[in-house]
Amino acid sequence: MEEKHRELMKELQSLLSVEQVTQNETALLQHGGDESYHAPVLPACIAYPKTTEEVQHIVRTAKKYRMPVIPYGRGTSLEGHVIPHEGGITVDFALMDQILEIRDSDFLVKVQPGVTRSQLNKELKKHGLFFTVDPGADATLGGMAATNASGTTSVKYGVMRDQVRDLEVVTAEGTIIHTGSEAVKSSSGYHLNGLFVGSEGTLGCFTELTLRVYGIPESIMAARVTFPSVSDAVGGVVTLLQSGIEIARVELVDEPSMQQVNKHMETSYKEMPTLFLELHGNEAGLAQDVDFMKTIMEEHACESIDFEMETAGRNQLWEARHNLAYAYVHGYPGKKLMVTDVCLPISQLAGAVAHAREELNRLELVGGIVGHVGDGNFHVLLMIDLNDSEEMKNAAELNENIVYYALARGGTCTGEHGVGIGKKKYQEEEHGPALAVMEKIKQALDPEEIMNPNKIIRTKRGDEADETVRTN
Amino acid sequence: MEEKHRELMKELQSLLSVEQVTQNETALLQHGGDESYHAPVLPACIAYPKTTEEVQHIVRTAKKYRMPVIPYGRGTSLEGHVIPHEGGITVDFALMDQILEIRDSDFLVKVQPGVTRSQLNKELKKHGLFFTVDPGADATLGGMAATNASGTTSVKYGVMRDQVRDLEVVTAEGTIIHTGSEAVKSSSGYHLNGLFVGSEGTLGCFTELTLRVYGIPESIMAARVTFPSVSDAVGGVVTLLQSGIEIARVELVDEPSMQQVNKHMETSYKEMPTLFLELHGNEAGLAQDVDFMKTIMEEHACESIDFEMETAGRNQLWEARHNLAYAYVHGYPGKKLMVTDVCLPISQLAGAVAHAREELNRLELVGGIVGHVGDGNFHVLLMIDLNDSEEMKNAAELNENIVYYALARGGTCTGEHGVGIGKKKYQEEEHGPALAVMEKIKQALDPEEIMNPNKIIRTKRGDEADETVRTN
Repeated sequence: MEEKHRELMKELQSLLSVEQVTQNETALLQHGGDESYHAPVLPACIAYPKTTEEVQHIVRTAKKYRMPVIPYGRGTSLEGHVIPHEGGITVDFALMDQILEIRDSDFLVKVQPGVTRSQLNKELKKHGLFFTVDPGADATLGGMAATNASGTTSVKYGVMRDQVRDLEVVTAEGTIIHTGSEAVKSSSGYHLNGLFVGSEGTLGCFTELTLRVYGIPESIMAARVTFPSVSDAVGGVVTLLQSGIEIARVELVDEPSMQQVNKHMETSYKEMPTLFLELHGNEAGLAQDVDFMKTIMEEHACESIDFEMETAGRNQLWEARHNLAYAYVHGYPGKKLMVTDVCLPISQLAGAVAHAREELNRLELVGGIVGHVGDGNFHVLLMIDLNDSEEMKNAAELNENIVYYALARGGTCTGEHGVGIGKKKYQEEEHGPALAVMEKIKQALDPEEIMNPNKIIRTKRGDEADETVRTN
Repeated sequence: MEEKHRELMKELQSLLSVEQVTQNETALLQHGGDESYHAPVLPACIAYPKTTEEVQHIVRTAKKYRMPVIPYGRGTSLEGHVIPHEGGITVDFALMDQILEIRDSDFLVKVQPGVTRSQLNKELKKHGLFFTVDPGADATLGGMAATNASGTTSVKYGVMRDQVRDLEVVTAEGTIIHTGSEAVKSSSGYHLNGLFVGSEGTLGCFTELTLRVYGIPESIMAARVTFPSVSDAVGGVVTLLQSGIEIARVELVDEPSMQQVNKHMETSYKEMPTLFLELHGNEAGLAQDVDFMKTIMEEHACESIDFEMETAGRNQLWEARHNLAYAYVHGYPGKKLMVTDVCLPISQLAGAVAHAREELNRLELVGGIVGHVGDGNFHVLLMIDLNDSEEMKNAAELNENIVYYALARGGTCTGEHGVGIGKKKYQEEEHGPALAVMEKIKQALDPEEIMNPNKIIRTKRGDEADETVRTN
């Protein structure tokens, strides 16, 4: 094996350059895992391509050596997506981080896969534009497309898949294809855009993305609304959605999570179930929406409403929401974060959140509940001790029970984090005979199973790695 | 062959019922073609299933006899999608026309594939909801999903693909699968929803659809704005989009087409390039948008603006726009309608429309130009004499030149009508090596090529039927 690795390394270095391929131990360790609790595995080497052609070289060489290829952005995935279970070449897109084009009148941008969302938004701001998708981490856009990421704004603007007009992809064969065009819509051919977004590196490497962007809205209003109970808060959101008010963001944070925010951020928010809301529009329209919203929230027994019209106040409010995961991580040193991610029809959401809280209590686990409630998506942020086998067992049971609760009610096991390794075991339950269709597609496009093997779809080789858990 | 057909017929009748399978000549003639200029071909027989299980019986029997299966809604497709080139069983979904569920709080409906959009909207209205996608014809929802139809509202609400949460599909193997779930979003597994929408019956028969619906907006304002030139009108739309005003509909109708409207509808609209516009919102927001819109339109040299706040006036305005194709058909008895359908980045639209008009003049063809300009999608409505070979040659040349103009500028050969037979010849030019990926998917999911063969993807059998033109 060692000999094969050395040969591979030499060949890649001759195709790229010596500096662009490494087996440096620190680098291997950094690329062995992601932000999740899944146990890391080291790659054979790491390649840092600078061009699409270099990615082609890597894939073709991998094919020759029958080595896996694992595309890597920032390693912020939450289900073990970038862990090279069978070894292989980790392709780090750090050197492909250019914003290639911003075309104002077409509301589109072209970027390399290593560009991060904050990098893009900083540049777009100069044009009065913004990119909507905002997962917790400052992930790369390539990684966000690979997992079909979303975040707080998808209730109005849609998820990552809705923003992708075209991907340049190096397929498992080493061919360069385009999955779409620059047109806003198309009925030509099969919808490869939709198929490749969310494919988690299992069908090819993304080397360029053409994305939809939006004009920054004229007026923005943010609000914090507290409720006596989570179900009151969810009820308020359902009525709000039905009212026709176009909500841009609506996030639920439960009582224990608000306590965690106050502890970590030194804020003094009320420690009650809280909705963080944002509306976009013109000034007059927003004023009318705000009045209507107040009425609706009061009908749902809200305890308080605080509005933020100013940018600074809004930023503080969203910072509190965005930092919640970190508030937990810092609050429980020595423990690791496990995050559930189901999404249900909104009529089932209040029940699902109540069920999750009951399970947390029953299994005596520490955790908060937050949710993109406009989409029916919520997370349990769970702090677990990887060396406490009882706690690990209970955490796994909680995750599983939450997934089965959602699947039994028309939901999905993952709203935005993706399958990776962690959700592979639920694919059959969720998709039934459709899983065989997915397997056929994988088989047709990557018959040698070199593209991020064993993610989403089980390999035919049969190496299984569902339950790998990090042990400190 | 005849013997095989009789056997097939008998077997299908025993599985369904005698009344549900026919070889009646009038019925065969009715199902041989669509609304396009492509030459009809008769199916071997027509089956009218009532349940998903009956569709399974049909597909399995077809597989046994190696007969093609052609799903059929209302036959309103425009590129020969439902023409059974190699004979086969046409599956008419007329008896699967039930609205199964309207779930207000989840903004979703479940329908059988034979439900039409007007049938659904009539029912939704009672709930204060509406379904947004509105192609010219009153097509079935199954057919609209098969071609990824859109229409006048996609600039705000998206195309058919954006409305589909789940499809129940009978695959080429005769297996029942679900391509999605009831959740608003998901990152679980490959995105089969996106792949099957727009697959034009080539990957399976849709037997149930779960669709997204919207609340009817509080206020609606419609307007008719005239301009001295088409490029002024398009310029106005670009600025409008950049202004952040959320346009719900924006349709361009050129001067010759306005003449046709007046002739056919006995209206007296100004015969100038005209934008038909609609904004949705709350009352205050709409009032502010209307003021802003006026300013923008005046900056783009508009000649007149007429607003319609009342439902009756709005209906008349949209009726004029919707009836345009029929205005042409009635205005040129003996001729047939040919419709182009390219879509480009909006920055390229004014040039593309000007190019199309030049081509119409150069080739001495009669036709109007209309467009969903917010999406960059426009149509040339062309009246052609199928017995005039010179005119037919010129029409084909026009269509081709318009397609190549769009493809050279980042566009697509079809924005909303689909590929069928008519746009198959442009698939390689548009998709390049991605076409091979599509072929592999087709091969993997329908190796025997029984599902609507020779549409979108060329069959391996090599029967070609690109240029079949109806002769009267």
